[in-house]
Amino acid sequence: MDLPVGFEDIVEAARRIEGAAVATPLVESPLLNRIAGGRILVKAEGLQRTGSFKFRGAFNRLSALDDDARRAGVVAYSTGNHAQGVAAAAALLDIPAVIVMPADAPAIKLENTKAYGAEIVLYDRARDNREEMGVRLAAERSATLVPSYDDARVIAGQGTVGLEIAAAAEAMGATLDAVLIPCGGGGLSAGTAIALKTRCPGSEIFAVEPEGFDDWARSLKAGRRLANAPGARSFCDALLAPTPGELTFEINARLLSGALAVADEAVAKAMKAAFSHLKLVLEPAGAIALAAVLSGQFDCHGKTVCVVCSGANVDAETFRRAIRGK
Amino acid sequence: MDLPVGFEDIVEAARRIEGAAVATPLVESPLLNRIAGGRILVKAEGLQRTGSFKFRGAFNRLSALDDDARRAGVVAYSTGNHAQGVAAAAALLDIPAVIVMPADAPAIKLENTKAYGAEIVLYDRARDNREEMGVRLAAERSATLVPSYDDARVIAGQGTVGLEIAAAAEAMGATLDAVLIPCGGGGLSAGTAIALKTRCPGSEIFAVEPEGFDDWARSLKAGRRLANAPGARSFCDALLAPTPGELTFEINARLLSGALAVADEAVAKAMKAAFSHLKLVLEPAGAIALAAVLSGQFDCHGKTVCVVCSGANVDAETFRRAIRGK
Repeated sequence: MDLPVGFEDIVEAARRIEGAAVATPLVESPLLNRIAGGRILVKAEGLQRTGSFKFRGAFNRLSALDDDARRAGVVAYSTGNHAQGVAAAAALLDIPAVIVMPADAPAIKLENTKAYGAEIVLYDRARDNREEMGVRLAAERSATLVPSYDDARVIAGQGTVGLEIAAAAEAMGATLDAVLIPCGGGGLSAGTAIALKTRCPGSEIFAVEPEGFDDWARSLKAGRRLANAPGARSFCDALLAPTPGELTFEINARLLSGALAVADEAVAKAMKAAFSHLKLVLEPAGAIALAAVLSGQFDCHGKTVCVVCSGANVDAETFRRAIRGK
Repeated sequence: MDLPVGFEDIVEAARRIEGAAVATPLVESPLLNRIAGGRILVKAEGLQRTGSFKFRGAFNRLSALDDDARRAGVVAYSTGNHAQGVAAAAALLDIPAVIVMPADAPAIKLENTKAYGAEIVLYDRARDNREEMGVRLAAERSATLVPSYDDARVIAGQGTVGLEIAAAAEAMGATLDAVLIPCGGGGLSAGTAIALKTRCPGSEIFAVEPEGFDDWARSLKAGRRLANAPGARSFCDALLAPTPGELTFEINARLLSGALAVADEAVAKAMKAAFSHLKLVLEPAGAIALAAVLSGQFDCHGKTVCVVCSGANVDAETFRRAIRGK
């Protein structure tokens, strides 16, 4: 296959991030399996450094910079998880970082990004164009702009999730029928799909996105990149990208079996199920693949299904609401 | 050393529980390290099957039963985590189980124990003697009573936590100065201490218990088993044993450097810190060792300290209260 990222790029990324990133576990709960009617293996990627997979791609991208580029620093724009990933990777590699973030990002994401030592520039989701802000800031400082998904090295870094899933499933003696992956810009699904198509060729791969933000489902069907209608809302703040990325669409259109759009209510229930049965804290985006299974939208009866759960950066009030009641 | 459980018993237990129990990860958060002022390695034992370490000892004990004993079944009394451990181990080994539990145990513990297929007999914490109830039920059914801590095989099973801590610390290149372990009856601390004294001989081991239930602190100082004064209260429902066990005291008196008693308020803060920084759900007992570090009661400046965090079976309302506010 002639794709913009190869399996070897992911293997190389895995070598580069080893020691810095956490090899997160594949966990399972017998009681959750009973509810789902199949065997659900949860890639607990919320336990990653910075609480999401974004650290992998950011570290892989930043560690490829030469000395001059490292001195000049990096710029990124992000709703919060890529922000933390870039900030933490930059801190480890001693690179100055400026992050453009929405003013209404969850407080935990803003606080942690600051705590990793990054400079933060806020924008208004409704009014400002964060891409333009990022490009301008990078130009002003001769800094490198680090895209959150449409970049070969970033995609390769995220793909290390797929290598780990394959290795852990093999160690458990599990053959994966399907892998469900949360999808905004598409970097995690693209990288993971490349890794899995080589390592678990028999498994089908699906993207999962919030209702109202089903650009992937429609784009994959149409065979071209379609945008989300403006005005939709979801509490999955990490999955609100307006349209599939260019590189990520090229990959996902080739490798994915489809995309599922899940309602916020089902996501909140999945957050509660992860709390009760897996003992994992998940943010809405992190619970969306699990929600696709528990809501019955993805039928996993008699199947072994891996759901990727990332990230886990959620404000206490949002989490409290999700786990309230029965 | 002439102790009732040897290092070899723990190695044997590790072989027996492999595949059934989860080898839980040792996790760390750079931001949490900054708050604590030292390197904190968290043994995320809440991710164990049934949400606590109790499964290890239960499975090790039950798998040693012969065919006749398996048919006759097992009886256990427990506030809830040993209950689930025995129920889940019994289900895996196809052994009937009766569990004596307090009527006011957290709902999640009662529900899960039932879900694993055990028969439940309720008792009143204030009025009934659960030991007598357990002994009577076992006699009536010719069943085997499975103690929650004062049993060599149970202690050996819990000790596998220590083997895993040592292996993971070694893989991370960390030398442990101290290991802090939640302590009720003392089975986890006793088993873990035996494993660590062989595998990490330089590390000091401390028990951590709730304020008002500081029988270990006083007993270790006095050199004999002292009871808790009646009437004390703590929301650490898994750590309310009235007095150190016999076997566990014999071991812990020899191997532990001391015990720390921590207030519920500090435990609640540690539950919130685990939510924010580790992305782990912990019940009060599961957060108590982390609380000893974060409250400053155990000074970890410049040290590498492992805190064992088990279990994670907490009702949503209790968890919602703990993570409320700043």
